[in-house]
Amino acid sequence: MATQGQVITCKAAVAWEPNKPLVIEDVQVAPPQAGEVRVKILYTALCHTDAYTWSGKDPEGLFPCVLGHEAAGIVESVGEGVTHVQRGDHVIPCYQAECGECKFCKSGKTNLCGKVRAATGVGVMMSDHKSRFSINGKSIYHFMGTSTFSQYTVVHDVSVAKIDPVAPLEKVCLLGCGVPTGLGAVWNTAKVEPGSIVAVFGLGTVGLAVAEGAKAAGASRIIGIDIDSKKFDRAKNFGATEFINPKEHEKPIQQVIVDLTDGGVDYSFECIGNVSVMRAALECCHKGWGTSVIVGVAASGQEISTRPFQLVTGRVWKGTAFGGFKSRSQVPLLVDKYLKKEIKVDEYITHNMTLTDINKAFDLMHDGECLRVVLDMFV
Amino acid sequence: MATQGQVITCKAAVAWEPNKPLVIEDVQVAPPQAGEVRVKILYTALCHTDAYTWSGKDPEGLFPCVLGHEAAGIVESVGEGVTHVQRGDHVIPCYQAECGECKFCKSGKTNLCGKVRAATGVGVMMSDHKSRFSINGKSIYHFMGTSTFSQYTVVHDVSVAKIDPVAPLEKVCLLGCGVPTGLGAVWNTAKVEPGSIVAVFGLGTVGLAVAEGAKAAGASRIIGIDIDSKKFDRAKNFGATEFINPKEHEKPIQQVIVDLTDGGVDYSFECIGNVSVMRAALECCHKGWGTSVIVGVAASGQEISTRPFQLVTGRVWKGTAFGGFKSRSQVPLLVDKYLKKEIKVDEYITHNMTLTDINKAFDLMHDGECLRVVLDMFV
Repeated sequence: MATQGQVITCKAAVAWEPNKPLVIEDVQVAPPQAGEVRVKILYTALCHTDAYTWSGKDPEGLFPCVLGHEAAGIVESVGEGVTHVQRGDHVIPCYQAECGECKFCKSGKTNLCGKVRAATGVGVMMSDHKSRFSINGKSIYHFMGTSTFSQYTVVHDVSVAKIDPVAPLEKVCLLGCGVPTGLGAVWNTAKVEPGSIVAVFGLGTVGLAVAEGAKAAGASRIIGIDIDSKKFDRAKNFGATEFINPKEHEKPIQQVIVDLTDGGVDYSFECIGNVSVMRAALECCHKGWGTSVIVGVAASGQEISTRPFQLVTGRVWKGTAFGGFKSRSQVPLLVDKYLKKEIKVDEYITHNMTLTDINKAFDLMHDGECLRVVLDMFV
Repeated sequence: MATQGQVITCKAAVAWEPNKPLVIEDVQVAPPQAGEVRVKILYTALCHTDAYTWSGKDPEGLFPCVLGHEAAGIVESVGEGVTHVQRGDHVIPCYQAECGECKFCKSGKTNLCGKVRAATGVGVMMSDHKSRFSINGKSIYHFMGTSTFSQYTVVHDVSVAKIDPVAPLEKVCLLGCGVPTGLGAVWNTAKVEPGSIVAVFGLGTVGLAVAEGAKAAGASRIIGIDIDSKKFDRAKNFGATEFINPKEHEKPIQQVIVDLTDGGVDYSFECIGNVSVMRAALECCHKGWGTSVIVGVAASGQEISTRPFQLVTGRVWKGTAFGGFKSRSQVPLLVDKYLKKEIKVDEYITHNMTLTDINKAFDLMHDGECLRVVLDMFV
């Protein structure tokens, strides 16, 4: 308990400026205030959203900051009034909070808790609108309410899920973002039924999780679409049954898919963040009922478009954030599913590195072979 | 039975060319072939879709043709194999067919029957790919599989709903298009729940039917939006509880509505056919669950657009055709509802005229006071 109530100085990867290499710094992490939890991060993975904000293209991005949002760790200490977790609990930080009390949580219709959004959206904690990170007195912004590229971080109590302590943290850290996003897009947002024909655009981690979720939901055909054919072999292991590389076709990809499926797919998922692909994903859906789910995050300012006739003739356009999962209550259930071998996690981890290698890890993400890089924070 | 099997010569309003006055002509209506029904049209209403095709802006529009698709009449004769209606039955022609056997009908997910679409889309009958209308041997195209601006028309048997003969045809003709479209958008497509906040863009017939449907569904607030404030008083009688004229606000209408509703509406309906309004209708929806339904038909080539973030944060964009009602099986039920005074019909009829007045009737449609003009075909 030596650290409780004390400032902890530890290593963190700091993004000082957009698009400049992260710098491993000694940062001071203040103790958690009321309603806050300080977590020792043992493992963090990298996600394209980190890279997007880092690139400077995210208009909400604030610098300097500590990025990172897909991780697992152990509670080091809790602030006043925090009851649902305590020191020693194994946890996954959740960029999507769940308070259980706000209009959103009580609606029964969405996982988008609004409790701390006003603070996490601007890189601070809610109670005093300040950061808990600093370097020699200079404040460093939080990111997504998680900032997991630090050996210690402070999160709101509504943003941390307590999980089974037997779960290997170096694996289940992935349940903080990409894998649930893909599974949940299928199970919660689209609600794919047995026998459905599914198209997945983009075969990265999220797209593979969509394929896995669709297989579990009993889809009869799972069509993987990617401009990198090297990804197809691996995607088979996640449930994809056939593949299309748009570069190998002259027709627009939506037309190729409509022709291949007697009118279109029942469900499609855009897992790239490309607005042209989002349009193709909608337009490859079957007239009358096809539903397209936007999972990828597009660059700021970009817009989707289509002819309204596409919707008037029965297609549905939706999106998903964190796969519609309620974070605090459902992430622990996903961990349990992993422990029962009902969902994959290990298979998404292609690289293991350390915090000091984080810039190399970001470089690796551009490689088609790479899915998730997991960083050991204390080596 | 003197006419059965014979060509009937009768009056019809013929659209010889786009945007030129319709001409009342003596047309020859061939007898129904196998799977076809010849209907004596007693009353027809005018709808904006007729005006749209007439204007020449509809790229699918074919001339010369007999327009009209919202009507009621009596079966004059049936072709071989037609069993579900017979001479003397009171019917409503249905531009949206229902065969009960195609992939669409069997899906349980849509009302968009595909059985005769290939023929009705190009103005002919399915069996021989020819028209049943002619003038001195010159073929005149069908329109929407209905062509109700003729005293006699021929439709496919899957495109005619048999209704209770006690229903007044001069009223229930409206159940062929606009009123069911609005009611069904609420009941079938959006599935509005009690207590919902609803926004209706455009307070013409379809918008008023949306308001009526929302009231019946128990909506707590029904916000009518129109640039003609004269329409607001009437809309109250159909269930609208408050009104906004976008011209009276400097802020974008979506922002006005979000401010007025603590974050947005639960359901919105675009009943105009304007792609900018379609965007506003989506963006005035509440984060997390707001659903926007496109009901209006936009001009050819126009596109809807928005930031994908709108969908990723939980809004849903859909559309509806004929309100999602299965025509042959559900139009008769709507007639029954009207007879039980559960839905309004009379209140949408602002003008009664005759077939010979049809060009004046089209002029009237541009008047904000006008909802539906019903033409008596035999006066």
